[in-house]
Amino acid sequence: MSDFPPGAIVSVLGGTGPQGRGLARRFAAAGIPVVIGSRSADRASDVATALAEEVGGTVSGADNATAAGQGDVVVVAVPWDGHADLLRDLNGQLAGKVVVDCVNPLGFDKQGAYALPVEEGSAAMQARAILSESTVVGAFHHVSAVLLEDPTVVEIDTDVLVLGDDREATDLVQALASSIPGVRGVYGGRLRNCHQVEALTANLISVNRRYRAHAGIRVTDL
Amino acid sequence: MSDFPPGAIVSVLGGTGPQGRGLARRFAAAGIPVVIGSRSADRASDVATALAEEVGGTVSGADNATAAGQGDVVVVAVPWDGHADLLRDLNGQLAGKVVVDCVNPLGFDKQGAYALPVEEGSAAMQARAILSESTVVGAFHHVSAVLLEDPTVVEIDTDVLVLGDDREATDLVQALASSIPGVRGVYGGRLRNCHQVEALTANLISVNRRYRAHAGIRVTDL
Repeated sequence: MSDFPPGAIVSVLGGTGPQGRGLARRFAAAGIPVVIGSRSADRASDVATALAEEVGGTVSGADNATAAGQGDVVVVAVPWDGHADLLRDLNGQLAGKVVVDCVNPLGFDKQGAYALPVEEGSAAMQARAILSESTVVGAFHHVSAVLLEDPTVVEIDTDVLVLGDDREATDLVQALASSIPGVRGVYGGRLRNCHQVEALTANLISVNRRYRAHAGIRVTDL
Repeated sequence: MSDFPPGAIVSVLGGTGPQGRGLARRFAAAGIPVVIGSRSADRASDVATALAEEVGGTVSGADNATAAGQGDVVVVAVPWDGHADLLRDLNGQLAGKVVVDCVNPLGFDKQGAYALPVEEGSAAMQARAILSESTVVGAFHHVSAVLLEDPTVVEIDTDVLVLGDDREATDLVQALASSIPGVRGVYGGRLRNCHQVEALTANLISVNRRYRAHAGIRVTDL
């Protein structure tokens, strides 16, 4: 059950990567019209066609700029490298929209993952600094791409922390998160507190290694 | 059920504050000998006497330096202000011990809580920088003092993320956490990734306000 508005289109930039493709799959399965964006329109179309065949629903593919223009809500699931450049290029297309940043700025060395320093404080705060006319929300940082993409996983046992300063936008993205079976969208604070949510992904990677798991997070007492 | 070694003494520095007092209560109730440390030995003794009467077990009070010397495991639950000074003063007493830092460097303004910048990266990393001969572990950042101190709360519905670079020490502190009914100690990564765990407390404060809750965190798929 989700209150996400019927017919509202969700575009997923970086929708051909594991995280973006996994989210697109789950949104499409929930009956949400999805546009997959990618640097290559052809590749986006291929992924969209495959997804539509597998899970049904309305899925199309386009280059990132076209996808950004078509979405009512636009999910940014691109690698941290290139995050700023992409958003600068799409500032116009993203004006007036709710932009959902789920990018985790992480580095990796022989000791595992760690949080990269970000001048603006976090990927989400960087997005807000660049996208002067969009409403930026942070969400979907911890959802395992492996689980999202696994057709045998019916429900995903995790909450999605949703961060932002606009109540209407965070409510909308909580509803979007809750459209995925098993998932509950939970308000997680203001956007200035998004850094630690992004960075916590490094800890979950450590958890996954130690316990051979695909760990998620549940908030208790709600 | 917990594997915490029988008879091992846990000292809680700042044990007269809500978080320290709450942890001391739960450890004592689990049969662990507890020493409450405070700047004032008298105040520590008063709290210890009251706790022993209420929950039973072996609880004593002392000034922080004495308590640090008596503990096999020493929990640091002091306010962020004065964290560095206290640890510098107790470097000798804490040599060779497992020191559990549960301090959250947070600021508060009219928009709520936010993470303070820490030169060393986090309270736990600051502790490690100061305590050259101790084994520093981060844990207990998110456990609600209100729930810990509420005698009507029998089980606390949360995991405790335990961070550190020494497997023996993190195993020990996971066992300590699991001595609290309802709580599960979960390995949460290396100490360098403690910042985001400390800072996430700001998000949980936002969650508590929005949902009128005492939120905790569970890690799923373990």
